[in-house]
Amino acid sequence: MDKLLYGAAYYDEYMPEERLETDMQMMREAGMNLIRIAESTWATEEPRGGVFDFHHVTRVLQAAEKHGISVIVGTPTYAVPPWLAAKYPEILAVTEQGRGKYGRRQNMDITHAAYRFHAERVIRELMKVCSGYGCVIGYQLDNETHHYDTCGPNVLKGFTAHLRERFGTVEAMNRAFGLDYWSNSLDAWENLPDPTGSINISYRGEFEKYRRGLVADFLRWQAGIVSEYLHDGQFLTHNLDFDFRGSSFGIQPDADHRAIADVVDIAGCDIYHLSQEKLDGKQIAFCCDETRSLKNGNFLVLETQAQGHPHWTPFPGQLRLQAFSHLAGGANCVEYWHWHSIHNSFETYWKGVLSHDMQPNAVYREACTIGADFDRLSPHLVGLQKKNRVAILASNESLTALEWFSHTIGGQIDYNVLLRALYDALFDLNVECDILFPQDRDRFAAYDLLVVPALYCADDGLLLALKDYVKEGGNLVATFKTGFSNEYATVAHDRQPHLLTEVFGLEYDEFTIPENVSLTGDGFDLTREERGLQSWMELITPTTAQTLSRYDHPYWGAYTAVTENEYGKGTASYLGAWPTEAYLRAFFTRRLKAMGLWGPGQEAVVSIRSGVNRLGKRVHYYFNYSMEEKEQVNLYGECTELLSGRGVQPGEAVLLPPWGFAILEE
Amino acid sequence: MDKLLYGAAYYDEYMPEERLETDMQMMREAGMNLIRIAESTWATEEPRGGVFDFHHVTRVLQAAEKHGISVIVGTPTYAVPPWLAAKYPEILAVTEQGRGKYGRRQNMDITHAAYRFHAERVIRELMKVCSGYGCVIGYQLDNETHHYDTCGPNVLKGFTAHLRERFGTVEAMNRAFGLDYWSNSLDAWENLPDPTGSINISYRGEFEKYRRGLVADFLRWQAGIVSEYLHDGQFLTHNLDFDFRGSSFGIQPDADHRAIADVVDIAGCDIYHLSQEKLDGKQIAFCCDETRSLKNGNFLVLETQAQGHPHWTPFPGQLRLQAFSHLAGGANCVEYWHWHSIHNSFETYWKGVLSHDMQPNAVYREACTIGADFDRLSPHLVGLQKKNRVAILASNESLTALEWFSHTIGGQIDYNVLLRALYDALFDLNVECDILFPQDRDRFAAYDLLVVPALYCADDGLLLALKDYVKEGGNLVATFKTGFSNEYATVAHDRQPHLLTEVFGLEYDEFTIPENVSLTGDGFDLTREERGLQSWMELITPTTAQTLSRYDHPYWGAYTAVTENEYGKGTASYLGAWPTEAYLRAFFTRRLKAMGLWGPGQEAVVSIRSGVNRLGKRVHYYFNYSMEEKEQVNLYGECTELLSGRGVQPGEAVLLPPWGFAILEE
Amino acid sequence: MDKLLYGAAYYDEYMPEERLETDMQMMREAGMNLIRIAESTWATEEPRGGVFDFHHVTRVLQAAEKHGISVIVGTPTYAVPPWLAAKYPEILAVTEQGRGKYGRRQNMDITHAAYRFHAERVIRELMKVCSGYGCVIGYQLDNETHHYDTCGPNVLKGFTAHLRERFGTVEAMNRAFGLDYWSNSLDAWENLPDPTGSINISYRGEFEKYRRGLVADFLRWQAGIVSEYLHDGQFLTHNLDFDFRGSSFGIQPDADHRAIADVVDIAGCDIYHLSQEKLDGKQIAFCCDETRSLKNGNFLVLETQAQGHPHWTPFPGQLRLQAFSHLAGGANCVEYWHWHSIHNSFETYWKGVLSHDMQPNAVYREACTIGADFDRLSPHLVGLQKKNRVAILASNESLTALEWFSHTIGGQIDYNVLLRALYDALFDLNVECDILFPQDRDRFAAYDLLVVPALYCADDGLLLALKDYVKEGGNLVATFKTGFSNEYATVAHDRQPHLLTEVFGLEYDEFTIPENVSLTGDGFDLTREERGLQSWMELITPTTAQTLSRYDHPYWGAYTAVTENEYGKGTASYLGAWPTEAYLRAFFTRRLKAMGLWGPGQEAVVSIRSGVNRLGKRVHYYFNYSMEEKEQVNLYGECTELLSGRGVQPGEAVLLPPWGFAILEE
Repeated sequence: MDKLLYGAAYYDEYMPEERLETDMQMMREAGMNLIRIAESTWATEEPRGGVFDFHHVTRVLQAAEKHGISVIVGTPTYAVPPWLAAKYPEILAVTEQGRGKYGRRQNMDITHAAYRFHAERVIRELMKVCSGYGCVIGYQLDNETHHYDTCGPNVLKGFTAHLRERFGTVEAMNRAFGLDYWSNSLDAWENLPDPTGSINISYRGEFEKYRRGLVADFLRWQAGIVSEYLHDGQFLTHNLDFDFRGSSFGIQPDADHRAIADVVDIAGCDIYHLSQEKLDGKQIAFCCDETRSLKNGNFLVLETQAQGHPHWTPFPGQLRLQAFSHLAGGANCVEYWHWHSIHNSFETYWKGVLSHDMQPNAVYREACTIGADFDRLSPHLVGLQKKNRVAILASNESLTALEWFSHTIGGQIDYNVLLRALYDALFDLNVECDILFPQDRDRFAAYDLLVVPALYCADDGLLLALKDYVKEGGNLVATFKTGFSNEYATVAHDRQPHLLTEVFGLEYDEFTIPENVSLTGDGFDLTREERGLQSWMELITPTTAQTLSRYDHPYWGAYTAVTENEYGKGTASYLGAWPTEAYLRAFFTRRLKAMGLWGPGQEAVVSIRSGVNRLGKRVHYYFNYSMEEKEQVNLYGECTELLSGRGVQPGEAVLLPPWGFAILEE
Repeated sequence: MDKLLYGAAYYDEYMPEERLETDMQMMREAGMNLIRIAESTWATEEPRGGVFDFHHVTRVLQAAEKHGISVIVGTPTYAVPPWLAAKYPEILAVTEQGRGKYGRRQNMDITHAAYRFHAERVIRELMKVCSGYGCVIGYQLDNETHHYDTCGPNVLKGFTAHLRERFGTVEAMNRAFGLDYWSNSLDAWENLPDPTGSINISYRGEFEKYRRGLVADFLRWQAGIVSEYLHDGQFLTHNLDFDFRGSSFGIQPDADHRAIADVVDIAGCDIYHLSQEKLDGKQIAFCCDETRSLKNGNFLVLETQAQGHPHWTPFPGQLRLQAFSHLAGGANCVEYWHWHSIHNSFETYWKGVLSHDMQPNAVYREACTIGADFDRLSPHLVGLQKKNRVAILASNESLTALEWFSHTIGGQIDYNVLLRALYDALFDLNVECDILFPQDRDRFAAYDLLVVPALYCADDGLLLALKDYVKEGGNLVATFKTGFSNEYATVAHDRQPHLLTEVFGLEYDEFTIPENVSLTGDGFDLTREERGLQSWMELITPTTAQTLSRYDHPYWGAYTAVTENEYGKGTASYLGAWPTEAYLRAFFTRRLKAMGLWGPGQEAVVSIRSGVNRLGKRVHYYFNYSMEEKEQVNLYGECTELLSGRGVQPGEAVLLPPWGFAILEE
Repeated sequence: MDKLLYGAAYYDEYMPEERLETDMQMMREAGMNLIRIAESTWATEEPRGGVFDFHHVTRVLQAAEKHGISVIVGTPTYAVPPWLAAKYPEILAVTEQGRGKYGRRQNMDITHAAYRFHAERVIRELMKVCSGYGCVIGYQLDNETHHYDTCGPNVLKGFTAHLRERFGTVEAMNRAFGLDYWSNSLDAWENLPDPTGSINISYRGEFEKYRRGLVADFLRWQAGIVSEYLHDGQFLTHNLDFDFRGSSFGIQPDADHRAIADVVDIAGCDIYHLSQEKLDGKQIAFCCDETRSLKNGNFLVLETQAQGHPHWTPFPGQLRLQAFSHLAGGANCVEYWHWHSIHNSFETYWKGVLSHDMQPNAVYREACTIGADFDRLSPHLVGLQKKNRVAILASNESLTALEWFSHTIGGQIDYNVLLRALYDALFDLNVECDILFPQDRDRFAAYDLLVVPALYCADDGLLLALKDYVKEGGNLVATFKTGFSNEYATVAHDRQPHLLTEVFGLEYDEFTIPENVSLTGDGFDLTREERGLQSWMELITPTTAQTLSRYDHPYWGAYTAVTENEYGKGTASYLGAWPTEAYLRAFFTRRLKAMGLWGPGQEAVVSIRSGVNRLGKRVHYYFNYSMEEKEQVNLYGECTELLSGRGVQPGEAVLLPPWGFAILEE
């Protein structure tokens, strides 16, 4: 990709009146050079089974060619037409709540042959139609694909085969999952019970992992079909989405991003984030860092909000701030969902660039300035490369197991909240991270600091990789519940943390939920409230580790909470309890200083994100995510501020208005 | 109706011992002249299929005749007997939760032929039995009829026919409802999906409207049967109920009151309201105003609480206050549900006039005073006529659409809460209202002020009727989200508010949820808290309108919130956001003063409700809904206080004890 | 039982490695002399239908014999194996939510013949295997048996037969249950509707009672089978559990403890309680008192927590305090659930004595001191006898009816919360109680004071037994809603309280929910907050009763709230409203003083529990359930403190550390 892409999802199908030429002109005036089309429009493309009508697609492609706008075409398969569900009700996924009803998207069984048959047919017809258009730069496979909780009999057949292949005998599975408990041990594969009724998280966890794998399988299958029609230079991508809690929050529990990334040429994602006074840059940064790390390179923001929900209506300046935040995270593309606000149905109040009246509005006018800047500065901003020294290791298996146990352990360990607490503390210190998954264990050595939230489920190999990492000089920070159970959520029966007692120089066999307890450790200069705890605490006895904080409590004061240990050529720190954000910042500050990773950038009053551009120059984004004007000195050498074109001397102050930003190129 | 009716629902069927003669005597002693019988007693009347036993009905009718008590006979069809559900399980309504279980009332499919067949048979048998009794003054069709969420396959067949008739082709429906979104467009009528699974509110909204219509259809069908047996002077009525939130709160979402009113001779309703310290008169007034407006005349309160729920046990005096509040709203009948407290089942703790011991108690003794006063003052109080100058326009379609969107728009616009906020503010100012529905558009001109809460769904004709109303000199007050979408909840794609930009002299294309924002407008002399906002705000740009309040906010301060515009011979005010009750009172005070509708009555320290009686004299009720004694001067000419018979000079103070009242006849 | 039993549930089946010899040795070192085995391990014992493998059972029995450890063998029937559910899906209980899924325990229909057939087969095989082992001292029938909400068609057949037997004709049942209400009256037995859909609590309540009876039937059936194999001296027991609200809270709604007690030789129960700062002794005391009273003798604590949930991890000393608290309640056995923490599945975080690493830990070390003390002091502590002068009468029927009505009466009367409020107030006054059920009506005379919470449902015989009890000199304290309805929840239609107006010297016909109301009664020297009310208040008019408190309210002040009445040779007190714990303590203090039951023990600063040991000596436990050190004088004669062996003179102070205790033997 040799230039920044800027645009919006475009639905000619949903227009209440003829708009195509007007819209293309308005986009060009806004500096937009990209649209995404066709995803979710199966019923328009195939209004009756076997009868195809791609006129909405072709007329948009023709208009795009005329106006020099690039197009990403999405396969339309994530929403099935009524005739398909009417003819084959069995393609609607059976979930724990029973067979779904027709209506919403993402309600089908992605493994079902009848669905796949029809999906393949419409994809092939669409590809034939599109293949002649030079404006098509790539294809998006399906959209935000999950497993949709599919768990019907055919899925269980597949899961049975998967288990048989993995374990060979039911006895081996019984042993691996501890199914003797409460009489759950199986006598024969044909009697395998529905995992959604099971109280055995080892069994359920394997099912969740299997289902996450189905998503990658499905997209690989689509990739095979679409690839038959690809021209040189056209790419395959997919729109990955995140754990959605009203906005993009953490890693996705219902798909394996890392496995999907192997299917596509370039990673893509959607990023929806809080806005107005709650816009803090962290959600954008986290989602960018996760997506970029998947293929260790630039990526596409295929969807992000323009106006979005009513409570997201951006303050003046925020749309600009957001767009450049994506670039600072390594995106080469910022694409809004969507061009025009839809006049019917579920997302009527998820507004696009244009309002329902489709006239120029405040957001459109701000988008025009972004388009102009993207166009002008593209050579400086496209293809930003990062070489981060810090990485966070995320684990879907641990998330699943901890979520399951949360209602039985008397507290709640929300994996994504913990992951984000660590990430956000580093963000506050202007430390940029990559996000790794267990599949990336051979990349550990590339980082100075590896941060590991609650790695509850891990095969011994992964734990030994962490051990080796420290032994060879790495710096490891791990939290409570790391090294507790194996890949099947079977708890280790040696000393905790399993395989890592030596690395961390400690052990424990008791834990509890914090009540009327806080952390000692005045070295950190924190108030008592800032030394508070939530959710979990382990009663640690150090062997070789140095204690950073103990518990402040009449009884638990006998135990240690936070430690640091020298091991081999490296250090391993352990957070045995869940402290506050303030504590985490103090803790990381201490660690970073010790590692020599603490510099002026960490103390900046604004958020800084950096990288190297295609011209080989370092680029530093200064972001002011606040309602107050801020002044930040240039922390680097002589720079050009790219927006204004002005030179900025080292130490010279840059003034950032509320929700403003600057781009310094060294 | 030439005298006030006062009485109670009477269930001989439920009596634990022989009580009939005793009860009749006690009623007569209490001045009661009315009972309602038979509704809900199908299983007693037809204990086995085709075997009838009306002895409970006939013996009560005989006793009533003997004691000179009038009777309203209810058809028993709103609770089906076990034998019917056992023989035809298919008559139990299929709802979103699946087929209902037998047990509760109101769980049948009112469209099902098997239900209708048996309902008709028992109604005809009952009518034959009753037709000989002169004490029967009227019949109540069924009771509190709703559609009970029926949505089984037979209902969908009817809905399909309805849609085909309305739209002709699926393509026309696809267009009208925007079904292309998320691949929902239909290829053939036989593939119509279950609306309860749909994410398209246009489609669901039409289904809700269709189901509301089923209720009127059903009652019209019953009216046809019952009419065959009617004698001269006997009336048909129905017991309408309201949106029930623990008590009667707002308009009924699951029935079309306005259409039902056309089926009956006289409107009837039940009114259940908060009590004790929470008795404020508003619920009674609202329900009376709605029911009275339906047929623009007097009506029957067919059910209201005596003791009711335990937390409703009335304070001394409240039963009297309530009874006369109903009269002040235009009721000609106050009937308690029910005479005796029931000793079993669901409403054991919904107590009647008598407690479970069926002896005279505090409530009975207070009822005796009411009966005596009703009897004595009937010529002065019966048939109260009102000619209100203010009306509120209510819309079930808007309620449905806003409820559906509430979980997607990031805020919640509860239509009935908004409707009641406007109503209650007017009540606090002693402004009496009529309640209109879209069917009443030709009555707009009869009012000086028309208040329109969030008229989200409206056909163009209705919006143009509003426009004409103002042009011809009417005063319109409308809130945010008025003129947003057509009758199918399809959002307009011209400037908002659709068709009304000129009337209101403003436009907007953005909106948001208020956070850290309040209203300016010091002319209203309100505290900052009183200028607060909830739920919704539109970012308005006035064209010709005068701004009454802007937003107090760093960014939204650029926009206007509340406006007033001269248009044609009238004025149109627009509330672009949801302000506090205090603001609404201030806003309406200003408007009423400008219209010359502000007088001493509006400033009274008590609640005043007025009308003209059959003697052609103006009657003013002074109600003290509070724990404190109040003194209110006579705001009118020389009056007689009817309860005491004393003359009251203009300006003379009338003393009202806590929960007390006075009736001034000019 | 001639010595104290101390031990843990032991699951050789769940061990991740060979542990048997190690575990036996560790138990012996801890002074443990008991294990419970085999419950819930059906799938291990019968891995395929008809194929049995008891090697886990036999090797543990052999090891137990070798180490001199006694064994209780549990029948494994409360968790069914997958092959059984796969072959007979119909044995999974149908509940209101439909047919259950396989996975969890306690999900079968205990009345189903296919389940019973297989249960019997595995029990007989297990009994044959166990019968040769002398270490087996008894058998536990199933575990924590409930009816599991079973309500499928076969259960309804049984219920129909039960109703026919009870009522003879449908007409009689219609009358008894008031089924004419809302057309629910039945025409023929074959049309009996599913009670779970009913809105008639009389009908539903009878179904609940019937289902509680199914539990005792099932255990009686198991007892018959197991008895065939019993040797001399072996006992039958069952593990009763309590209303579980995160821990054992009140009487069990889904089983009839009193009926089950008749099936077994010795009562057994599990007691799980709050811990850490929330350990207050009340849950242990209540559960002990209930279980002990069932057969009026010593009993077994078959399960209690060692570490338990993470938030229960005991403070140092608490495990000891808990163990002796059970003894003080009359237990002869303290058995932990369970020995080792399980490495998989649902209860991974319900930790046993050993942690997951199965090494000696803090809890094990404290258990060792308990085992040693139990062994040493057994002759003084085993078989503690109590003769309490106070009893509380509990009623499952009342609990069921009040729970049902709670959502219709506008307040909530949580029966177990009320029961525990009364119990806890007495506990705070160091008054020990027995817990009786309606079946125990012939035991009333044995008590000086009978406390009766909300006896909503009662046959006339039971109410007359209460009347007789007072007439003959008993002291009765009853609360609101006592004597309101008969055994079928049919409300009495005479004066309330039904049959007891004379006993209590009062009557009422109105009640309400307290709002802005408190109690008068300064005699009690309580703050206004302490005179507050919750949930319910009756508007009482005394006839012969003395008023202790009236209502402090502008209107309800006319009524009485709390009374005391002389009747016959006794007194009857009535609490017409639900007061605070402080009021209850003051109220009971006054009553106890009047009865001469108030002494120094009631004023102690620690909790005291007493009894007579096998040596005929009085034993007094002093328990300090607090974080503070306490000093309590010896309130009795010359004593020996058994733990230390030191003599303690009358009046001499005994020092109790936080969570400490002492045992004084007179």
